[in-house]
Amino acid sequence: MRIISDIIVFAMANYVYHTEFAVRDYEIDSEGIVNNAIYLHYLEHSRHNFCREAGFSFAQMKEQGMIPVVNRIEVDYKTPLRSGDVVDSRLWVEMRGPRFVFHQDLYNRDTGNLAVSAVVSVVCLVDGKPSRGEMLAQIFARYLP
Amino acid sequence: MRIISDIIVFAMANYVYHTEFAVRDYEIDSEGIVNNAIYLHYLEHSRHNFCREAGFSFAQMKEQGMIPVVNRIEVDYKTPLRSGDVVDSRLWVEMRGPRFVFHQDLYNRDTGNLAVSAVVSVVCLVDGKPSRGEMLAQIFARYLP
Amino acid sequence: MRIISDIIVFAMANYVYHTEFAVRDYEIDSEGIVNNAIYLHYLEHSRHNFCREAGFSFAQMKEQGMIPVVNRIEVDYKTPLRSGDVVDSRLWVEMRGPRFVFHQDLYNRDTGNLAVSAVVSVVCLVDGKPSRGEMLAQIFARYLP
Amino acid sequence: MRIISDIIVFAMANYVYHTEFAVRDYEIDSEGIVNNAIYLHYLEHSRHNFCREAGFSFAQMKEQGMIPVVNRIEVDYKTPLRSGDVVDSRLWVEMRGPRFVFHQDLYNRDTGNLAVSAVVSVVCLVDGKPSRGEMLAQIFARYLP
Repeated sequence: MRIISDIIVFAMANYVYHTEFAVRDYEIDSEGIVNNAIYLHYLEHSRHNFCREAGFSFAQMKEQGMIPVVNRIEVDYKTPLRSGDVVDSRLWVEMRGPRFVFHQDLYNRDTGNLAVSAVVSVVCLVDGKPSRGEMLAQIFARYLP
Repeated sequence: MRIISDIIVFAMANYVYHTEFAVRDYEIDSEGIVNNAIYLHYLEHSRHNFCREAGFSFAQMKEQGMIPVVNRIEVDYKTPLRSGDVVDSRLWVEMRGPRFVFHQDLYNRDTGNLAVSAVVSVVCLVDGKPSRGEMLAQIFARYLP
Repeated sequence: MRIISDIIVFAMANYVYHTEFAVRDYEIDSEGIVNNAIYLHYLEHSRHNFCREAGFSFAQMKEQGMIPVVNRIEVDYKTPLRSGDVVDSRLWVEMRGPRFVFHQDLYNRDTGNLAVSAVVSVVCLVDGKPSRGEMLAQIFARYLP
Repeated sequence: MRIISDIIVFAMANYVYHTEFAVRDYEIDSEGIVNNAIYLHYLEHSRHNFCREAGFSFAQMKEQGMIPVVNRIEVDYKTPLRSGDVVDSRLWVEMRGPRFVFHQDLYNRDTGNLAVSAVVSVVCLVDGKPSRGEMLAQIFARYLP
């Protein structure tokens, strides 16, 4: 179904943010590769770094009564990451109704291989109730397509 | 799109396996709910328990040269689990070509609420190479639809 | 220095609580054994279960303004736990000044081997400040030596 | 017992290695601070980075038949780390018989506060059996006091 290669996707995607971090050995499972759940940590860590760059840390959002909540995740696992690898994490984000949809790709920095490609859908609770996302949209304004 | 309620899904799904385990407090994040990545641990733990019941622990599969590898995950987060909750984990599995597709639902045992609904696609490496899944199909034979 | 065997310690220790839980495969590291940090999760999970049995869940303590905080841990690693093992977790607790000192041993339920022996020191913050432990002492009264 | 302040300890300790890494938000527990077990991950991550700098990654040690195994840990928790903090991790190591004893301190890079002070004892298995540590001693030679 996917007729264009990952390399081309890399070139075409209009990422608005990237961050890097090292695989830690305790994240390696008994197969010698990063455990599949750990990638969700990587994705969350990247989104939180992105929010901080956008001007609001997760902690600051909470103080404002905003709590972004993940309501759906799709993850394609491409090539495993291993001990010693550095993650090159890239993302772009779009709004679909009240949802913020993060398109996140994790690359092996040194080989350039795509490790994981994910689509993460987030809604924003305000004072405990689902919101239409206006506050978060303001924070992300300059990053939205 | 989804016009039947989760309750009905629960009644209709032909789960072939279920297992239970408690939420552990260290799995709770700063929002007071189970962190989104932890559910992948729950899903994996359930699949491994299922494999053990089917007659092959993950360790035994490895000894036979089989390594099941997750290649795609879709997770819908419905209602958060919290400290003290017990997870009622149910699944059924089907084969689509060389892939084993696990349909996994995690319920809050005490309220009956659906916490997470996931579709996890697994391929089986044999001696390090992708296989058509024959060995695993044999192990799962009596559970396949 | 330690001239009595672990078996005898097992017989002599006046444990006041025990709980059991299974090792989960994702807790296994690349050496094929439970990662050293995971045992701290096991120890915490056991203490929290103990508190719940004593009448106060961790969440309920928080509501009362109490926050137990770990201030020192000593862990001796004896024999590693592996995939499929069940943990038999036992503990007793004593008060030393304002500190609650938990003596916690984790056994492999099926072999009876001591996996980990730990001493965990906890102080109790009340409304954010160090307390002399009176509230917690009341909760634990019937378990203290 | 400890009559000199942590600041002075900082000045006096002859650390032979330091590394830095960021607290990740998913490491924060429901108290809003880094969970006590996570510090063991930080300590292990620091030792593994140190080994890599010393010329042997953990993976390379394994290829040579060496497996360093933690047999005792003592951790004093001083001041909690929080979301957004950067860990300044420092260590020195000495040999006591067949054991390598790592003295590891984790500081909050920005405040300079000592977060955790730990003593971690490691023995080295060679081809599955306890060794006298000769191979590891050679690797660490220029770092030993």
